[in-house]
Amino acid sequence: MHSATLAINEAVLARRARGERVLHLGFGEAGLPVLPSIQNALAEHAHRNGYGPVVGAPHVRAQAAGWFARRGLPTEADQVIFAPGSKALLFAGLASLPGDLVLPTPSWVSYAAQAALLGKRTIPVPISAPAGGVPEPEQLRSRLREAVQAGREPGVLVLTVPDNPTGTVASWAQLQEIAQIAEHYGLAVISDEIYASVVHSGQQSPSIAELLPDRVIVTTGLSKSLALGGWRIGYARIPATEWGRAVHQRIVGVASEVWSGLAAPQQEAAGFVLSDAPEVLAHIEQSTRLHATVAAAVYEEFAQVGAVARPPAAGFYLYPDFEPQRERLAARGITTGTELARVLLNDHGVGVLAGAAFGDDDRRVRARVATSLLYGSTEEERWAALGSTDPLNLPWTAEALDHLREALTALLR
Amino acid sequence: MHSATLAINEAVLARRARGERVLHLGFGEAGLPVLPSIQNALAEHAHRNGYGPVVGAPHVRAQAAGWFARRGLPTEADQVIFAPGSKALLFAGLASLPGDLVLPTPSWVSYAAQAALLGKRTIPVPISAPAGGVPEPEQLRSRLREAVQAGREPGVLVLTVPDNPTGTVASWAQLQEIAQIAEHYGLAVISDEIYASVVHSGQQSPSIAELLPDRVIVTTGLSKSLALGGWRIGYARIPATEWGRAVHQRIVGVASEVWSGLAAPQQEAAGFVLSDAPEVLAHIEQSTRLHATVAAAVYEEFAQVGAVARPPAAGFYLYPDFEPQRERLAARGITTGTELARVLLNDHGVGVLAGAAFGDDDRRVRARVATSLLYGSTEEERWAALGSTDPLNLPWTAEALDHLREALTALLR
Repeated sequence: MHSATLAINEAVLARRARGERVLHLGFGEAGLPVLPSIQNALAEHAHRNGYGPVVGAPHVRAQAAGWFARRGLPTEADQVIFAPGSKALLFAGLASLPGDLVLPTPSWVSYAAQAALLGKRTIPVPISAPAGGVPEPEQLRSRLREAVQAGREPGVLVLTVPDNPTGTVASWAQLQEIAQIAEHYGLAVISDEIYASVVHSGQQSPSIAELLPDRVIVTTGLSKSLALGGWRIGYARIPATEWGRAVHQRIVGVASEVWSGLAAPQQEAAGFVLSDAPEVLAHIEQSTRLHATVAAAVYEEFAQVGAVARPPAAGFYLYPDFEPQRERLAARGITTGTELARVLLNDHGVGVLAGAAFGDDDRRVRARVATSLLYGSTEEERWAALGSTDPLNLPWTAEALDHLREALTALLR
Repeated sequence: MHSATLAINEAVLARRARGERVLHLGFGEAGLPVLPSIQNALAEHAHRNGYGPVVGAPHVRAQAAGWFARRGLPTEADQVIFAPGSKALLFAGLASLPGDLVLPTPSWVSYAAQAALLGKRTIPVPISAPAGGVPEPEQLRSRLREAVQAGREPGVLVLTVPDNPTGTVASWAQLQEIAQIAEHYGLAVISDEIYASVVHSGQQSPSIAELLPDRVIVTTGLSKSLALGGWRIGYARIPATEWGRAVHQRIVGVASEVWSGLAAPQQEAAGFVLSDAPEVLAHIEQSTRLHATVAAAVYEEFAQVGAVARPPAAGFYLYPDFEPQRERLAARGITTGTELARVLLNDHGVGVLAGAAFGDDDRRVRARVATSLLYGSTEEERWAALGSTDPLNLPWTAEALDHLREALTALLR
């Protein structure tokens, strides 16, 4: 099966190619242009064609280590692994850690799919009210207790901080409680922090790696903060412990047999980005401000028609729940998230992804809404959105918000 | 476990970093510079940052389809899948095809390792005397018969044409016999043709896809013919049959959950290369001539000391067997391929890879010798080697051949 997020992207693009007017709220692509100095960093290293080490070149890993250290996680270059996307590292991490996968639900589409591919069983645990990406602690305790009693072996917990699909950030207090439970049950943790540089407040999101230094693999990449999804740059930080070294070796084993390493020109571009050049940091700040403004506006549109969502705090997502409008929607034949997504796409030209794609109960009328493809469809429009003090009133963004408002109003009329 | 080829590469590079003089015959890197027009094709597309379709952009797949068609395999763009390296496609192919893996032995290090990672059992079949990369037909018949009798389910046969580690090319007649057996047993075939553009005679190597159009997946890439290993560009051709469409869907499923797609700038560079621009074809021809000249010279060195190898006909490899020198080597404590490789590296500064890494019986004193890192260690030296009418007498290549001669002579003194 095709990844649900990539599938909706291709479906929307195909409709547009047929000339249909479709508002694309289905795909977590950052929707912004590449900073010219990063383009130059790639272009200047187009002569680099050697395979090099599986984990990445030493000088590039040293830059990543410095990057982690400046964000509160002291790191040596030997702890860093680069790969073609953090998705690949998540796969290798899951392949390298024994036991069942404990997964907050809803959560990003590929965790459970990767586990299935690896023949790994999943233990879903509902997320909490304040934030997604981490399981609700009481539920986590009881699910783990039941799982162990049933003879299962919970092995690895995946967290997403900040979170996709909810666009929220777990708090320190939440992570502390989760860390205690993970420690009690001897769980390894994979902390997917790909949105850590896209927190709307400008603050850094907390990392459970500070709380459980021995047992946490952090994965991240440049796809979201710098809109480099199509460049496939991911990197991971593995603990410098005996456990970490053993896991490191297994991950490198998978990497060396499945993809060999990150492309050399991309490694050099990553080295430049991770040096925290002032223009790179300024670009991330400007991008994050735009994501925050547009996500807040889209949140308002859903709130206006009576859908409930956690206010977006990071990334470019929200996860509205149409429970308060259940009867009205049922009268139109919509009783599941899947039907909601289908009607929005077919009747109203709005592409969203049903909650079921994220492991949620399809009987809840929920969907994930990505807000990052509203900044324009050309590089010019996207640069204008980045530079604008009032991006919501740019013609293309205003038109997109109008389209959404009309669709939601028509849906709930 | 780290892929054996990537591990020897890192070991040799680490020794060199410590100041040791090491002749690197351990790694299948093409050892040549990037053609400037291909560098430009990457650099010009550094602004491309969208994820795009998992299989690759339509216009790039159309170029690949034309490339296959001009080489005797009529192909539509829908049959093509791009990925970060053909290794990734081999993994996805093995993950998508049911049954045990039937594998010529010796063969490239990662096939069996990928099968192990996927929990897939392997049925090894010895290669034939004239060429590696395909199993000896009588042996193939008897192993399949035995396997089926033992209740096993042979499902997929991997061929390497031209071959690594033997540097040879299976003939049409051999492939015809293999195709008949594969058809009889209902095997799917993955034909790894990554060296197809590196045949020393300049002729095209045969593809079993012409013989079994319904059941063959062809994988290839730009790592060898254009020395782009560090760019990670692979692509596959899937049959346009019902079977092919089902396999295509499964491969795309794996791709979308493990690596998402080939990086966008690399896709554009591949599109340029696969248009068969005259300068690209001329560069491949010049590169292949150099590979042929140096491989032949290295073959002579091994022949001089009484090792037996198939004469190299493609790629940049040979696979010498020290059987005729068994007694002399045994007197020095060398009775396995692993010991041979260890002594060559530790005592003589020559890095080769023991046959056991390719699944061969370690009691045979065999090793794979890669000849492609003798062209120089700088871009300038490598361009000079490409342009030279007498590359063996370039100072750095002559010195490397002297080093090899001294090492082999000392070993067998």
